[in-house]
Amino acid sequence: MKKALPRHFNCATEFTLTVLGGKWKTVILCYLKQQPLRYGELRAIMPKLSDKVLSQRLRELERSGLIERPRASRANAGSAYRLTGLGDSLRDILLSLYDWGEKEAAAFGVTCGHPLLELEREPAREIQ
Amino acid sequence: MKKALPRHFNCATEFTLTVLGGKWKTVILCYLKQQPLRYGELRAIMPKLSDKVLSQRLRELERSGLIERPRASRANAGSAYRLTGLGDSLRDILLSLYDWGEKEAAAFGVTCGHPLLELEREPAREIQ
Repeated sequence: MKKALPRHFNCATEFTLTVLGGKWKTVILCYLKQQPLRYGELRAIMPKLSDKVLSQRLRELERSGLIERPRASRANAGSAYRLTGLGDSLRDILLSLYDWGEKEAAAFGVTCGHPLLELEREPAREIQ
Repeated sequence: MKKALPRHFNCATEFTLTVLGGKWKTVILCYLKQQPLRYGELRAIMPKLSDKVLSQRLRELERSGLIERPRASRANAGSAYRLTGLGDSLRDILLSLYDWGEKEAAAFGVTCGHPLLELEREPAREIQ
């Protein structure tokens, strides 16, 4: 595909994890599996990431062919990122990651937010 | 649980990925979901990892309650690591990571090995 990968991996799981490319890229993919999101919306629901890191991760995901951002027809519309067909093929993985977290959080004594729901209630300011 | 985690995560997926703890720990969990493995066996099927890194990752996985190593009855037996009940709860995630890799490798022009099969053919030397 579009990203230089080693030709051989010692096991299939190592290959998949290399394509996913780490925690924050996987979190971005999880949000985009729910709905297309503009940069400003991603920015609002991922407050731990700096602008620089979020932009980098989005570029890497675009370059590896997992997400795309169709050009908006209106110059100011701030077109949304969405999963490509390849990105969407990761849906089972993304769902199982989310489901486990939802189910086990209480046993770990942690709480998990639902930032997409918050976003619906209070639409993000258009940052870009 | 046994590992200090933040009390709150912005989303469930971020929590799950934090528990999994990165690529190599997830790969170790994937092998152990198939069968218990001794240190020397894990060493043989993960040639990219140094002894130091493999030992660290195993200690971290034990500390977070995802794997355990019951003491062997014979001093020299080299007891095997295995998933705990908590580790086993990650099975759906681990399976989906493996399945995607097996299915998509050809489209990426990469090959993936099957080190557990190799291990059966040529049992690892007892390193520990």
